[in-house]
Amino acid sequence: MSVTPLGTVLSHCPKCGSDTRVEVPADDSMPRYVCTGCATVLYENPKPVVGCVTEHEGRILLCKRAIKPQLGFWTVPAGFMELGENLGEAALRETREEACAEVTLGPMLAVVDVIQAGQVHVFFRGKLATPEFAAGDESLDVKLYEPGEIPWDEIAFSSGNIALKQFLEQRKAGVEAVHYEVAPTNRL
Amino acid sequence: MSVTPLGTVLSHCPKCGSDTRVEVPADDSMPRYVCTGCATVLYENPKPVVGCVTEHEGRILLCKRAIKPQLGFWTVPAGFMELGENLGEAALRETREEACAEVTLGPMLAVVDVIQAGQVHVFFRGKLATPEFAAGDESLDVKLYEPGEIPWDEIAFSSGNIALKQFLEQRKAGVEAVHYEVAPTNRL
Repeated sequence: MSVTPLGTVLSHCPKCGSDTRVEVPADDSMPRYVCTGCATVLYENPKPVVGCVTEHEGRILLCKRAIKPQLGFWTVPAGFMELGENLGEAALRETREEACAEVTLGPMLAVVDVIQAGQVHVFFRGKLATPEFAAGDESLDVKLYEPGEIPWDEIAFSSGNIALKQFLEQRKAGVEAVHYEVAPTNRL
Repeated sequence: MSVTPLGTVLSHCPKCGSDTRVEVPADDSMPRYVCTGCATVLYENPKPVVGCVTEHEGRILLCKRAIKPQLGFWTVPAGFMELGENLGEAALRETREEACAEVTLGPMLAVVDVIQAGQVHVFFRGKLATPEFAAGDESLDVKLYEPGEIPWDEIAFSSGNIALKQFLEQRKAGVEAVHYEVAPTNRL
């Protein structure tokens, strides 16, 4: 592993506010931030990000990002999963927030490790429930793209690239499987 | 959603140590812990847990838990994914730690939402690389079970139950697909 399990710097204990120090806890094998006051171990784990490749009459819904990173690039609607929701609900919520679109959720499409971001990306298939969409707060524009017109050089993230390619290849082949892949670590 | 996105109580900012307060940040729609000193928003998200249904000569490797919760119950080797590793590496590491077993990883088997725990469980298929295994620090015992002898009433977690059933059903049917399910919320 090239990344330590420490993630972001956690200088203080979120429970009691005391300073932390880095050490390997007694029953552990990796360094963690540990509270010098109450001995709480501050674990950090990868975060799930959930998205939806949504189609309407054969075209694919993409959002132009209004926020960093990759501002101005096109993305499959996706974002951090929240506590209290399931993966499918997260996919629908993100599509609603970024593309103002109501989607009928389809089967899971892809699971992609994005190690350098400390994230696991999960994508579903979806279909527009109504032919309505618009740019949400995090989008500059939302468009339906014919497969042959997808702006591949302007796709924001490699996981979205993987999901889009899987979606199109599987649709062409008439299959619906869940693809698993570790994203390349040399790009977003 | 029945659970708030607040998760565990975070009284202090891990960056600066100041007190937090609960509020809905300006660009957000949900209450979060926000630092009263440096305005850092303390997001909490579901955590990925990764496991492996490992077979050897038709039998399935299970571990008897030496730790809470569900001490004494049987489980598919599984645990929290670490930063810096991918899902497949996490599945191999957990099987090594809990069952002292080296595994040849197979295709992904199942993805299970465990909402009440704030977790997403991902299971792979695997085969013992060598016919050796033993109880790791977190296990009281490790055994290979014939499918007909699996102690279904003593399986620790519903996600493991789902993964084992999928594994056996799919093996019987001669298919290898990724199953997605939301675990029942009325049990572990």
